[in-house]
Amino acid sequence: MSTTGRLFGLGVGPGDPELITLKALRHLRAAPVVAHFAARGKAGNALTIIERYLAPEQIVQPLIYPVTTENLPPPFCYETALATFYDESAAIVAAHLDAGRDVAVVCEGDPFLYGSFMYVHDRLADRYETEVTPGVCAMLACASVVGTPLVYRNQTLTVLSGVLPAEELKRRLADTESAAIMKLGSNFAKVRSVIEELGLLDRAHYVERATMGNQRIAPLSSIDPASVPYFAMILVPGARWAA
Amino acid sequence: MSTTGRLFGLGVGPGDPELITLKALRHLRAAPVVAHFAARGKAGNALTIIERYLAPEQIVQPLIYPVTTENLPPPFCYETALATFYDESAAIVAAHLDAGRDVAVVCEGDPFLYGSFMYVHDRLADRYETEVTPGVCAMLACASVVGTPLVYRNQTLTVLSGVLPAEELKRRLADTESAAIMKLGSNFAKVRSVIEELGLLDRAHYVERATMGNQRIAPLSSIDPASVPYFAMILVPGARWAA
Ligand SMILES: C[S@@+](CC[C@H](N)C(=O)[O-])C[C@H]1O[C@@H](n2cnc3c(N)ncnc32)[C@H](O)[C@@H]1O
Ligand SMILES: C[S@@+](CC[C@H](N)C(=O)[O-])C[C@H]1O[C@@H](n2cnc3c(N)ncnc32)[C@H](O)[C@@H]1O
Repeated sequence: MSTTGRLFGLGVGPGDPELITLKALRHLRAAPVVAHFAARGKAGNALTIIERYLAPEQIVQPLIYPVTTENLPPPFCYETALATFYDESAAIVAAHLDAGRDVAVVCEGDPFLYGSFMYVHDRLADRYETEVTPGVCAMLACASVVGTPLVYRNQTLTVLSGVLPAEELKRRLADTESAAIMKLGSNFAKVRSVIEELGLLDRAHYVERATMGNQRIAPLSSIDPASVPYFAMILVPGARWAA
Repeated sequence: MSTTGRLFGLGVGPGDPELITLKALRHLRAAPVVAHFAARGKAGNALTIIERYLAPEQIVQPLIYPVTTENLPPPFCYETALATFYDESAAIVAAHLDAGRDVAVVCEGDPFLYGSFMYVHDRLADRYETEVTPGVCAMLACASVVGTPLVYRNQTLTVLSGVLPAEELKRRLADTESAAIMKLGSNFAKVRSVIEELGLLDRAHYVERATMGNQRIAPLSSIDPASVPYFAMILVPGARWAA
């Protein structure tokens, strides 16, 4: 009798390897196959976080992103390229599962908050036993290193992608008490302009690679847009509750 | 020479003791004083989560909430009662710090996301060395146990308090792709009505005490409002991204 393997999506936290949970670490160590997403030629953040916990006998299975920009010249289409990539990633993972090997897909932060794992999950969760272990998300790690509470009492927190158009960012930021804006990189200048227009510069915090060795926290106004990596975020914490 | 103690805010995760991070566990075990918030006569979730990790020689310092409702008969005022309580809690913690004892305040989920610790933090962080360890928040734990990705690609996630008026909840829910509505309890019926009016019932998930022994996941329509505890949440995940 052969049984298929189980699929684990493991949140491994925002960067500091000590911010993994006991549960994710247990599942990680028990998995014969550890899969991780990465850009070509790079180790990938998730792998870097958990590398120290791996045993020599574990299979490390990279899933390498095909492209790094959303603005491709026609006839190329980012959406199609991504869909194909996720299909292929799911097939690679499924092959291990079919061979009876459990697969742990390690995810930076939490698996279900803008994680690449979601697209593998959606393709395989109906066919294989699947379990997701939540992780410490980057947004809360950023708040902790800045040392600022993010949202008080009945305030609203809005989590936004920096990829959104300036107009939409402006409308949403104007209508929330607390915000986190992720996916910065080349979107940084646009996002900062919006924050400036709204008079929020003084309340905003820029955090890069929170809890990693090369973490950077700086006033928004001091940042050179060309220096902003993808792994950066802007927080606009809710106004301190007076009580 | 006497030195004051250090203040630690430790996110201990949503309920399952295995969802604590290695870092929070290290700080917890090293702290001579472990402080926790709880309602009168109850152990408190944070304490329940970490009780198994405590050593007999650690001082357990409860911080007991004065009232349990926002609707007090005049002349009582919830805001004033809370402010007084946080002042007193900060003084209790400060007394330990002044005596040179490190204090770990354990926080259900993450310390900076609607956590009671925030009010102690805001009173003491300027005066004592303070460090916050982020934790797995309840919202992501809820998504993991339901088995649903929360937010795709460039979707917006809105985190709301169920205490908000129906009109505001409706407006905000109508204008977001993904949402988490916390602080249910007696607000449940109001929140469900809004979700029903918006035609979101089919997409919404009700999760109670996620990752705890008595966890309950159920269709929103099946829930008896009188049975809904404070430790429950409604998730409206973003629509699956087709790619
Ligand atoms: C695809 S999302 C993944 C989010 C992750 N799943 C989580 O739970 O936090 C990537 C974005 O997360 C943010 N991010 C991730 N790690 C970060 C870190 N250590 N410091 C600052 N931002 C980070 C950046 O905004 C980045 O563009
Ligand atoms: C004061 S807030 C604290 C949130 C916490 N600091 C966090 O990071 O998740 C309390 C609310 O969190 C939600 N909550 C906390 N733990 C939960 C759990 N295990 N399951 C479902 N909801 C939970 C409920 O909506 C509850 O009303």
